[in-house]
Amino acid sequence: MYGTIRIERNPSCKTKPGQEENLGFGRHFTDHMFIMDYEEGQGWHDPRIIPYGPLSHDPAAMVFHYGQAVFEGLKAFRTDKEDIVLFRPDQNAKRLNRSCERLSMPALDEEFVVHAIQSLVRLDAEWVPRKEGSSLYIRPFVMATEAGLGVRASSRYSFIIIMSPVGAYYEEGLQPVNILVEGHFARAVQGGTGNAKVAGNYAASLNAQAVAKENNCAQVLWLDAIEKKYLEEVGSMNVFFKINGEVVTPSLSGSILEGITRKSIIHLLNEWGIPVKEQKIAIDDIVAAYENGTLEEAFGTGTAAVVSPIGSLLWQGKSMVINQGNIGELVQRLYDTITDIQFGRTSDTHNWLVSC
Amino acid sequence: MYGTIRIERNPSCKTKPGQEENLGFGRHFTDHMFIMDYEEGQGWHDPRIIPYGPLSHDPAAMVFHYGQAVFEGLKAFRTDKEDIVLFRPDQNAKRLNRSCERLSMPALDEEFVVHAIQSLVRLDAEWVPRKEGSSLYIRPFVMATEAGLGVRASSRYSFIIIMSPVGAYYEEGLQPVNILVEGHFARAVQGGTGNAKVAGNYAASLNAQAVAKENNCAQVLWLDAIEKKYLEEVGSMNVFFKINGEVVTPSLSGSILEGITRKSIIHLLNEWGIPVKEQKIAIDDIVAAYENGTLEEAFGTGTAAVVSPIGSLLWQGKSMVINQGNIGELVQRLYDTITDIQFGRTSDTHNWLVSC
Ligand SMILES: Cc1ncc(COP(=O)(O)O)c(C=O)c1O
Ligand SMILES: Cc1ncc(COP(=O)(O)O)c(C=O)c1O
Repeated sequence: MYGTIRIERNPSCKTKPGQEENLGFGRHFTDHMFIMDYEEGQGWHDPRIIPYGPLSHDPAAMVFHYGQAVFEGLKAFRTDKEDIVLFRPDQNAKRLNRSCERLSMPALDEEFVVHAIQSLVRLDAEWVPRKEGSSLYIRPFVMATEAGLGVRASSRYSFIIIMSPVGAYYEEGLQPVNILVEGHFARAVQGGTGNAKVAGNYAASLNAQAVAKENNCAQVLWLDAIEKKYLEEVGSMNVFFKINGEVVTPSLSGSILEGITRKSIIHLLNEWGIPVKEQKIAIDDIVAAYENGTLEEAFGTGTAAVVSPIGSLLWQGKSMVINQGNIGELVQRLYDTITDIQFGRTSDTHNWLVSC
Repeated sequence: MYGTIRIERNPSCKTKPGQEENLGFGRHFTDHMFIMDYEEGQGWHDPRIIPYGPLSHDPAAMVFHYGQAVFEGLKAFRTDKEDIVLFRPDQNAKRLNRSCERLSMPALDEEFVVHAIQSLVRLDAEWVPRKEGSSLYIRPFVMATEAGLGVRASSRYSFIIIMSPVGAYYEEGLQPVNILVEGHFARAVQGGTGNAKVAGNYAASLNAQAVAKENNCAQVLWLDAIEKKYLEEVGSMNVFFKINGEVVTPSLSGSILEGITRKSIIHLLNEWGIPVKEQKIAIDDIVAAYENGTLEEAFGTGTAAVVSPIGSLLWQGKSMVINQGNIGELVQRLYDTITDIQFGRTSDTHNWLVSC
């Protein structure tokens, strides 16, 4: 598919950040990147790995004007045996194609996408950090590159993969965060782009995020745009609640991104015999559970943090403290289980790992 | 404000498209572009006009990943007296700032924006075409340029202006088009970004546009995302209807872009004593008016076409032909009036024109 990946090695590799440096998220980039072009009539072509460096685009390139761009995010982990593994990259390739379809962009061969990721990780393997909990974040993205101002699907695209070594999301172990329930701004609506990983969704979320910060909250919990009543996601994570021994998460309504962590967690809960339901969840249901003392745990889920315990929810000026602001038993178990799989500390019985 | 605009002339100017060439829309670009940078702490700085040419950005530049980008569109016209004029550029500068605010981007001095446009048009004045109905399309845009993958507002931006000579939208005079009423996809929702000129809105609209084309329609008429009942916009234009002698247009509900052409048309109608109302308009109201024979005219309005008569509306498989598919009297009068002002064929009693 698309031919052999041509490799042009970087003659002047960067100094890697030190073991003890705080890596942060997406601030350092590795020595190489993958790139492949699309042109109408010709299809995807010229896959290559080249030195990481600036992209040059006409100022009329459509990505600058009409936001025709989608992306993915996944991680490579270094196991104790010094293997380097990816977590469910096939799922990211699949979702990338769903996102492309939503924005009228050409599909990519999913196996080739995984192959491209593997090839790039292999070349920059030394960039996969060794420090406890750290990993290599991988960012595949596709964007419209045709120069032209007519509002229509571009005839040219680039598919690019860049990579960044990242620290553990919680340097000191899991840490509950405060979350603001957002009643004004909307992230997405049925018929829109909320169920795709589309660039514009994230720009649209920045204002609400700023309001959260002002309220001493780490993120917002989005409500549905139509009735401003049903829970959707928390920041860029899916959201789960444990109420009276049962786990619930909002169903995929068309405006929610289908997280790969979400999917994996539902799988694990089923395996463990813990009841889990995908359903419509009204904010009033959460308030009621809080008030009658059955709201046991709440957490976000996503590639960056795996799970993120919610310490409190701020809604209509009132703060609902969950589990006395402590890390719940379930969220800890999920975190341990998934990170143990990712770092090869337990056997990968689900075949979720793919070697590089 | 921001200091003097530094000018670096293009040593190798392009050949301009010939008088008889079909210019299309946004395909040719002039010899120069304006650019100014923003950095947190420093603010907007280094305004300059330089040769039109590629922009170089880190592959992690936020605009590629999170769609933090907004734009404007306006035109420069060459009058019979060889003056070059802009149509209400102050309104574009104002709307640009509203869009920036929605995406957590830094504001621009509005007078300076107009000054930058004027300076660029003056330098590339020979690019303003002379052919009947043609003009110079001006595209100011702002985008996030910081390299980093954290989802947050960028700390760096570029404000850029590029320009493109464009032909008359209707080479052969006004031409009614077929429009598909879109019942599935959503353009925008209250609390979202529909009332700002935000890059991602346009990528989100491409799928619906493709469905319109398949149905032999030029564009879609968007319904509100909540009830799928109320009219919003037609493609990238506002929409007006003349029903029983009265003109109606959807009110600014929070999900509709406030068009400058829309505003100008409401002003003219008021002046002419033609009743015009901004209100909620259900698609059922239009069907009812069609059925009882009072639906007299329908048209879109926007900078590109000024007005665009709607020949028919396709809704739930049925086509409603409007005014027997002919150009209505009102839409023709509006078109003539506005283009006469723009091309200096009538006096600019509203002070809508600004010279370059
Ligand atoms: C909006 C949104 N929701 C949810 C998620 C979680 O998805 P995943 O578990 O695949 O990382 C992400 C991305 O990480 C996201 O951007
Ligand atoms: C979504 C949308 N609606 C309406 C309009 C019309 O606005 P204006 O009359 O200012 O060109 C535009 C842009 O031109 C637009 O992009």
